[in-house]
Amino acid sequence: MRARVFVTLKPSVFDPQGKTIQDALHTLGYAGVHDVRQGKYFELDLAAGSADAARALAAEVADKLLANPVIESYRIEVE
Amino acid sequence: MRARVFVTLKPSVFDPQGKTIQDALHTLGYAGVHDVRQGKYFELDLAAGSADAARALAAEVADKLLANPVIESYRIEVE
Repeated sequence: MRARVFVTLKPSVFDPQGKTIQDALHTLGYAGVHDVRQGKYFELDLAAGSADAARALAAEVADKLLANPVIESYRIEVE
Repeated sequence: MRARVFVTLKPSVFDPQGKTIQDALHTLGYAGVHDVRQGKYFELDLAAGSADAARALAAEVADKLLANPVIESYRIEVE
């Protein structure tokens, strides 16, 4: 099964990379872009018998390796 | 409006970062993770009158700045 994991900085954490992209877009003339947050995106190909099992495995992997739970949160989609 | 942009390496492009994560997961005992691809994830807060306008703006921004169209492809979701 395929799981998608989206890792983003928590809203309270400053995102300098996103801010830099936002400034660059304003310089390029895209004043309509008010805010940019950058995160990480992972596609996992998992051996799991059910969607629930795949979600549990992806969450365990995200907790241990993909995200830093102190400053980042993550969201999982399974298909 | 909020647009989400997912940027991934094209399937034909080798992803050394994903391969390293996969190897690390196998070392940690997660043999059920067959494949990992890493990409980038952007949340854009846009001034746009409609979902179509937001999607068009996000696509333009992705083409110009967020993705390298030679080796990367992207997908956009608008909400």
